[in-house]
Amino acid sequence: MYEGALADLVDELGRLPGIGPKSAQRIAFHVLNSDMSDVERLAQALHAVKEKVRFCEVCGNVATEDRCRICRDPRRVDDLICVVEEPKDVIAIEKTGEFRGRYHVLGGAINPLDGVGPEDLRIRELMQRLAAGATKELIIATDPNTEGEATATYLALMIMPMGLTVTRLASGLPVGGDLEYADEVTLGRAFEGRRPVA
Amino acid sequence: MYEGALADLVDELGRLPGIGPKSAQRIAFHVLNSDMSDVERLAQALHAVKEKVRFCEVCGNVATEDRCRICRDPRRVDDLICVVEEPKDVIAIEKTGEFRGRYHVLGGAINPLDGVGPEDLRIRELMQRLAAGATKELIIATDPNTEGEATATYLALMIMPMGLTVTRLASGLPVGGDLEYADEVTLGRAFEGRRPVA
Repeated sequence: MYEGALADLVDELGRLPGIGPKSAQRIAFHVLNSDMSDVERLAQALHAVKEKVRFCEVCGNVATEDRCRICRDPRRVDDLICVVEEPKDVIAIEKTGEFRGRYHVLGGAINPLDGVGPEDLRIRELMQRLAAGATKELIIATDPNTEGEATATYLALMIMPMGLTVTRLASGLPVGGDLEYADEVTLGRAFEGRRPVA
Repeated sequence: MYEGALADLVDELGRLPGIGPKSAQRIAFHVLNSDMSDVERLAQALHAVKEKVRFCEVCGNVATEDRCRICRDPRRVDDLICVVEEPKDVIAIEKTGEFRGRYHVLGGAINPLDGVGPEDLRIRELMQRLAAGATKELIIATDPNTEGEATATYLALMIMPMGLTVTRLASGLPVGGDLEYADEVTLGRAFEGRRPVA
């Protein structure tokens, strides 16, 4: 429907996750009407991410140096490691302000349908960190879905024999939610995990 | 929360229309995990749109030459002009396959709250086209909202004295919709515009 450059941009934008044809069109027209300097900044930012961002050699989180900001931070506790699937999970947990340990980013979850097995995740690196001996507790914070649960079970089976405490984030009712709108599985988990009133 | 280049990209993406902080983050990680060649293509497409796309000197639609594809097409009818707000409206109408005339793109609608007056739209250019004399009917296809209606009324008042037929797209029930879910104004318009059963 469009000619040349505009059609190309709509195409390229449409390949990004969560951008449908209508959004791609809307963004393309926004770009067309933007200042050249704004477009230049966006193009530069795209390049810079590919050129400058790397992955922390310790935990696998995104980093600008060999080690990420969290692995470099001397104020964090060394005997507590939280295992997550993706760097964005680190951000989500950091926002809670509840965790002062270190992270380990797996780079995904076990998913046989997509051909992702344990050897495709940073599990060997995790075992090496744990073998070094400083860790007392490993918190498994993979997503509460089928792949995340499978990954958690796999990790627990591998790590439990090493004699350290392995925990999993609690499942239950979301705070601020309505009990009647909770799905059965979540409500079941909330019953299972019920705690004495303090 | 992010460092350096990744934070910059999340920022820049968040400035695009319809992209919230979560989508910006998701796209930034997608870019980080993409091949350099894909990212390069997107950056090139952004540049190309600013460098190569211009506006048709006749109708104001997007074009790659002095005149757009539709204004260059000899098979289109010259005595029928459809007035729209934006180039994307041209695409929407072209998709129907119902219109074989020419277009005139205003570049927006009259919106006093945003400081957009008639002089900011391509109305002078429209009057010059009409003064040339080939046009028999002008179809006003501005959006069916307050600004679009105001623009339509303004254009109708300007153009009616020139003695050509001025029409407005029909308002009514959307095809495939449910009568009970139609808002009152739309349902009222559908009554007003009712037609004898053929």
